[in-house]
Amino acid sequence: MQLLKDRIRKDGHVAPGGVLKVDSFLNHQIDIDLYNEIGKEFKRLFSDVPVDKILTVEASGIGLACITAQYFGVPVVFAKKSKSKNIEGGVFSSPVHSFTHGKTYDVMVSVKFLHPDENILIIDDFLANGKAAFGLLDIVAQAGANVSGIGIVIEKGFQKGGTQLRSMGVNLHSLAVIRSMDDEGNLEFDDDPEPAKLEN
Amino acid sequence: MQLLKDRIRKDGHVAPGGVLKVDSFLNHQIDIDLYNEIGKEFKRLFSDVPVDKILTVEASGIGLACITAQYFGVPVVFAKKSKSKNIEGGVFSSPVHSFTHGKTYDVMVSVKFLHPDENILIIDDFLANGKAAFGLLDIVAQAGANVSGIGIVIEKGFQKGGTQLRSMGVNLHSLAVIRSMDDEGNLEFDDDPEPAKLEN
Repeated sequence: MQLLKDRIRKDGHVAPGGVLKVDSFLNHQIDIDLYNEIGKEFKRLFSDVPVDKILTVEASGIGLACITAQYFGVPVVFAKKSKSKNIEGGVFSSPVHSFTHGKTYDVMVSVKFLHPDENILIIDDFLANGKAAFGLLDIVAQAGANVSGIGIVIEKGFQKGGTQLRSMGVNLHSLAVIRSMDDEGNLEFDDDPEPAKLEN
Repeated sequence: MQLLKDRIRKDGHVAPGGVLKVDSFLNHQIDIDLYNEIGKEFKRLFSDVPVDKILTVEASGIGLACITAQYFGVPVVFAKKSKSKNIEGGVFSSPVHSFTHGKTYDVMVSVKFLHPDENILIIDDFLANGKAAFGLLDIVAQAGANVSGIGIVIEKGFQKGGTQLRSMGVNLHSLAVIRSMDDEGNLEFDDDPEPAKLEN
């Protein structure tokens, strides 16, 4: 998705430790017009599969899932990362290790909101080693539902998550796949003719 | 907002401990059509004040803020509840006690995303004792920005947050104000002629 790649080039930067910072438009401050373009693109990419519900995980996936759901005309369910008084009764649960937060937590969905044979589209902002995606796949499997696909905004193609998911036959679409990046701000998308510097 | 009150009557219920459960349509599974009606209603209620940006707090405020922002044509900023690698540099920060999670955490916004004299509309799903709202007000004040208003989906009118905010002169609009509720499923909105049972 060229609009997204251009925006990453313009407003993204690489922080020490290999963290791609897109917090000015994607996951702290949010450009709603860009989210809508992302939602339309997911609809285009997943127009040939049945989608009854969109599943994501808190926190930064929620806005993307809600805007995207408008183009599919379906509800959103977001997995929670901590047991709260807001989940009662049984849950589908899977442990996920977060690179960003440096800890393992359980992602949880109430058994009330995923049902056998429902067709689930998973949406998230980032895919790196795939831990969150595998947690959500596990939860969908526990429910006996079907995964119609996984839509990712930014995939770190140099980490193993995308390769693993594709080798499993998962219908995965990532709107921008990063082939390489470094602390000097060099960033290469999978379809770039040559690497280019981020603008800041 | 009658549509919302009707939905709470139909699909909400009171869990032990005085927790109003609206997780089938508002804050775990999300009815996107309802969110859009909520967004339109916030636009109507705040049409006479300047709004440059919508501020909310993760997690369940994010989807509401994103859908609502479409009607204002402004970006969203969501405050984070934990320091992660995704916030670098300075932050505006305020301690908030969560009744739902039974602990105190800091809400944080990068100094990059709130600026002096910006007009900020705060959006959240619940208002009870007002802890989250006061935390966000504190953050806006730290930034030197202006609060144009606070839009709340469900206010527990029998707790003190709404009264305190209104007495401070805050431009607060709540789409449904609950005057009383109990563990037997009796729930009364502020404009009900008489209390009525939730349907389940």
